[in-house]
Amino acid sequence: MEDLLNRFRAGEHRALARVISIVENEMPQKDELIKQIYQQTGRSYILGVTGSPGAGKSSLVDLLVKEIRKRNENVGIIAVDPTSPFTGGAILGDRIRMNAHALDEGVFIRSMGTRGSLGGVTKTTKEIVKVMDAFGMDWIIIETVGVGQAELDIMYIADTTIVVLTPGAGDSIQTMKAGIMEIADVFAVNKCDMPGADRVVAEVDMMLDFRDDHVKWRPPVVQTSTMNIVGITELLSAIERHRGYLLDKGIFDVRRNERAKNETLDIVSQQWERLVRKQVNQPGQVKRLLEKVAAREVDPYTASVQILDLVMQQVVGQATPAR
Amino acid sequence: MEDLLNRFRAGEHRALARVISIVENEMPQKDELIKQIYQQTGRSYILGVTGSPGAGKSSLVDLLVKEIRKRNENVGIIAVDPTSPFTGGAILGDRIRMNAHALDEGVFIRSMGTRGSLGGVTKTTKEIVKVMDAFGMDWIIIETVGVGQAELDIMYIADTTIVVLTPGAGDSIQTMKAGIMEIADVFAVNKCDMPGADRVVAEVDMMLDFRDDHVKWRPPVVQTSTMNIVGITELLSAIERHRGYLLDKGIFDVRRNERAKNETLDIVSQQWERLVRKQVNQPGQVKRLLEKVAAREVDPYTASVQILDLVMQQVVGQATPAR
Repeated sequence: MEDLLNRFRAGEHRALARVISIVENEMPQKDELIKQIYQQTGRSYILGVTGSPGAGKSSLVDLLVKEIRKRNENVGIIAVDPTSPFTGGAILGDRIRMNAHALDEGVFIRSMGTRGSLGGVTKTTKEIVKVMDAFGMDWIIIETVGVGQAELDIMYIADTTIVVLTPGAGDSIQTMKAGIMEIADVFAVNKCDMPGADRVVAEVDMMLDFRDDHVKWRPPVVQTSTMNIVGITELLSAIERHRGYLLDKGIFDVRRNERAKNETLDIVSQQWERLVRKQVNQPGQVKRLLEKVAAREVDPYTASVQILDLVMQQVVGQATPAR
Repeated sequence: MEDLLNRFRAGEHRALARVISIVENEMPQKDELIKQIYQQTGRSYILGVTGSPGAGKSSLVDLLVKEIRKRNENVGIIAVDPTSPFTGGAILGDRIRMNAHALDEGVFIRSMGTRGSLGGVTKTTKEIVKVMDAFGMDWIIIETVGVGQAELDIMYIADTTIVVLTPGAGDSIQTMKAGIMEIADVFAVNKCDMPGADRVVAEVDMMLDFRDDHVKWRPPVVQTSTMNIVGITELLSAIERHRGYLLDKGIFDVRRNERAKNETLDIVSQQWERLVRKQVNQPGQVKRLLEKVAAREVDPYTASVQILDLVMQQVVGQATPAR
């Protein structure tokens, strides 16, 4: 553990990969690890990239990373595919993409499939962000495969969210998932050398015109092409403008603080759940009350007030809350 | 409230609609209402119907309902669309479908879009099931629009889950969402008069042959056609066979009891969260600890142990837990 942390702090990619695995797999060392690295967090800038499958998000991210690397800033990439439960595929994806940055020590890529619930993906993504942040990444890019509800939830982690659109038939504003336009801080109209790109830009502009005047930030619309390498510097400077806006208005700090508080409260909930589960699994009043609810002798609301009381009495009666 | 409950118990559909709205919108009367009706729950048989969009699920459900109505048993239908946040559309859908059962007092339909998170849909669906159950529905049918993760989560509420397949090109077993085949208790191959239906049946059979021998229930595969009204009685008797299996093995009762216990524990969690939020929102030690986490002076794990302790001390020190 000590050794792992030393190598992590020294910037070893293999140590970073190991810490991420420990966090991802909920291994016993996890809590202690996060404790040890927590002070170093809160410095990375988090970028979210979402859009329909086939919009060219991965290629766009790769070019963006090259642009960022010119400034000598380092980047962690989390590629999230909530539709795929197969980690095997994810690993293969990593290998293929790593080739582009194979010799670059400033880039680290991690792919993630779903493990269990959707809520699980968001939770794990948050934790990997924390680890990459503590590792000292200047940028963390979260890239999703599609644009489902899970992807929308994940995007709330990002400081700046890029929505990638294309002039493809099925990709006009009308067909976009509800909620996706609202989360965009920057629009990238990719494949801008294909026919119909101007129409997509016009549609987005029109939609933005219709938006409430109270909204202070109007998302810039940047035309990009990953094939002919067009608009990448423009995209990065649009991101930087949004970053400047968040910093100027104090939004960046407020969000960082809220995030830290919410994460702590999530842990409080998890610890509480552990206490309840302990009482549920052993013979006693809590267990008996639950049996009565199952037999429809007591309603769940009456029972829950009593269970809440019983669990707390039990714990407060003892020395300190169990871990 | 008294009046509403009387009309609810007398079997008035308008009272049922009103109670569902109260539950769905988390209105203040909700807890008391559930308390009052809880004893009457646990009697409905819950059917889940899922499958790709366009598989003909709604038509199949409508025909199934007609079949059930021949026995003079009544039915509540919950149509869930986790991809749509528009309740307007849902209401329109209700109206169109209600025509089919317009004069039938034994059928009640409710549509639901997403409100906020995916977890929210599942929670609300569970609660509407409880209300319809207490109302005295013999059957409750939960029908989903697509087959995403949200739909899979919802299907765990059902006693019997029907997966609807069609001979359409994009609907072969290989392309089905992971997890969908595992939750099926009965397969319906709909549009069975279209070419390719036999192939779908063969594919499902082959997949079932490959399954673990330890599985005790082999899902029957029923060919149906909603256009030519084929296989509906066969589908209902396949459902009845599965129901008999669950009852024989005692699985039905075990599931009912587990569900009641888990619902109670969910309420315990919600009440705990309320207590924590109260402390978070007022000046004091909890608030100060969270500020320290935000300033990276304390790590979230150390802080959470102290917060857990503080909240419990606070509550146990007082008379009874706050509601």
